[in-house]
Amino acid sequence: MKIAVDAMGGDYAPGIVVEGITAALYDFPEYEITVVGHLGKLSYYLEKYGIEDHPRISKVHADEVVEMSDPSTVALRSKKKSSITECARLMKDGKVDAIVSAGHTGAAVASTKILVRTLPGIDRPAIATSMPALSGRFILIDAGANTDCKPLNLAQFALMGEAYAKYLFGIDKPTIGLLSVGGEDSKGNELTKQVFKILSQLPVNFIGNVEGDTIFENVADVVVCDGFMGNILLKGAEGLAKTTMRLMKDFFSKNPLRMTGAMLSRNAFRELKQFADSEQLGGAPLLGINGICVIGHGSSTSKAVRNAIRVAGEFVKFGINDKITRRIAETQSIIAKCEEQISNTQTEASEE
Amino acid sequence: MKIAVDAMGGDYAPGIVVEGITAALYDFPEYEITVVGHLGKLSYYLEKYGIEDHPRISKVHADEVVEMSDPSTVALRSKKKSSITECARLMKDGKVDAIVSAGHTGAAVASTKILVRTLPGIDRPAIATSMPALSGRFILIDAGANTDCKPLNLAQFALMGEAYAKYLFGIDKPTIGLLSVGGEDSKGNELTKQVFKILSQLPVNFIGNVEGDTIFENVADVVVCDGFMGNILLKGAEGLAKTTMRLMKDFFSKNPLRMTGAMLSRNAFRELKQFADSEQLGGAPLLGINGICVIGHGSSTSKAVRNAIRVAGEFVKFGINDKITRRIAETQSIIAKCEEQISNTQTEASEE
Repeated sequence: MKIAVDAMGGDYAPGIVVEGITAALYDFPEYEITVVGHLGKLSYYLEKYGIEDHPRISKVHADEVVEMSDPSTVALRSKKKSSITECARLMKDGKVDAIVSAGHTGAAVASTKILVRTLPGIDRPAIATSMPALSGRFILIDAGANTDCKPLNLAQFALMGEAYAKYLFGIDKPTIGLLSVGGEDSKGNELTKQVFKILSQLPVNFIGNVEGDTIFENVADVVVCDGFMGNILLKGAEGLAKTTMRLMKDFFSKNPLRMTGAMLSRNAFRELKQFADSEQLGGAPLLGINGICVIGHGSSTSKAVRNAIRVAGEFVKFGINDKITRRIAETQSIIAKCEEQISNTQTEASEE
Repeated sequence: MKIAVDAMGGDYAPGIVVEGITAALYDFPEYEITVVGHLGKLSYYLEKYGIEDHPRISKVHADEVVEMSDPSTVALRSKKKSSITECARLMKDGKVDAIVSAGHTGAAVASTKILVRTLPGIDRPAIATSMPALSGRFILIDAGANTDCKPLNLAQFALMGEAYAKYLFGIDKPTIGLLSVGGEDSKGNELTKQVFKILSQLPVNFIGNVEGDTIFENVADVVVCDGFMGNILLKGAEGLAKTTMRLMKDFFSKNPLRMTGAMLSRNAFRELKQFADSEQLGGAPLLGINGICVIGHGSSTSKAVRNAIRVAGEFVKFGINDKITRRIAETQSIIAKCEEQISNTQTEASEE
């Protein structure tokens, strides 16, 4: 199992990333890790954590880093020698089975999409994020890889999300919901109305439209949407959670009585924090590429990096790409037929 | 000041609505209220609250109610005699200054849009919801009136949201943000990229793209988006808040120690609940119509109904529609120029 890690990606890189790599090396003896980044800057940390000459470590130098403020395309244009581009190149050349990055999401998507390419039958890759719900979690796909989508793309996201749910939840027939503005079939925007028709015909456990208020109550295992929508929902949830936590801190520390109360019930706060925590998951896979890429949160801790590496390896073993490719092949004729119907309807409408 | 209230709208109608009307009658002596609904079903409550023969009450009978499961268009097709349609008709005929409904949002939008029409220069009305943030609130527009929008629509939403912010926050130059997926100008989907260009040229306090995680930290007074996006964000926030509250209840009642702690800090919980509470606001205005329409939450309490009536009257006094019309007139030539540029770019692109 060979995994390349973008050591320069993330708010606390490279220190925290190297710490996470160290933990992964000890915990997963079958993993070989390629550290990708500026070796001059990395050597201090590799030495600090004592893995400079580890038998399962190899190093690849990358001159540049894609900064959070850079546009996504920089990874393929002015910074072709960046750590994330080098990771994608290693995967393209078959030198690693998977890559992990907690850096610039857009750059990770762009470089793997162009260098590694998509799986046969997949038009666009998508980010699948698992989000906390009342009991357990649900998968949001696409969480930000594509800003403008066609119905076909969302149908493929549903199939990729299904494969991920089978891995993550260990269930056979995950429920699939389409993120929309009303429960009824007829509701939605132009895009989701077309997607609804395709999903209704696919051999998946499609439960129809789902709304923003029920997704956090486990109404569906997989929630399908375009990446613009998904990213805003994801960041909105993160923002609201952060604001709520900050307000709670203010409210509970206003006077000694409240502070005593908060201290007595501190384990309840701990559980609440765990609910929102994504450390355990490590990261979100970019599904649909001809390889494995796990994207960590920018603020990943070393534990999150270690878990992202774990997950990347598990994806390889689980054979998620074979499963996706098979489902796409099985459903290709259905999707093609639906697409034809959609384009006929559009031609008729424009002729009227 | 004449206000029609849809007495049949809302989860707890008509009892709670009549209770709210009663409170409004006592608190706002200059308001005359027209109760619209099935008089047979209403008379019990009108009598119960002693307002059956109140000098400032008038009654209009409506045979039908648009149910939450009905499609929006039902208000104009099979249920033309519904309480919300009758309210819209009263406003159309100039018999009332404003209407209030806590019923089917889509039906309220459809019936006022068609019967009352939009303000001069406004293509589509939009729902402006005020949402809680770290300190104070922000306005989300459109929160669900339009599922598919053109750049022009969002530019108009920004101007309407600006007028609402002036009323709600009492500030002169509210900041306007465009909901998108990245802070940089270049980021967004096809729609928001075009909207960005228009807003940059309008004489408003436009601060650029804003993301889901910063809007809850008061990054902008007005957050502009299409109604599909806005509705999903709004319901997602409601859903997450509800789930968090339920989990807190579970976590804090797990054992006697935690329960004692929760009891000691109960005022902190109260403050947290108040943060999420929308009762005080009463409802969200549907802006851009040639009249005033305040839409309450389906689960409105009598206090929320009373406040929605208060707000409806305040809008009339504030002259929000004059303010919107003036701003639209002032900016019409800029928007028209931007639209021309957009359509030229699109023609060029399709000719390539």
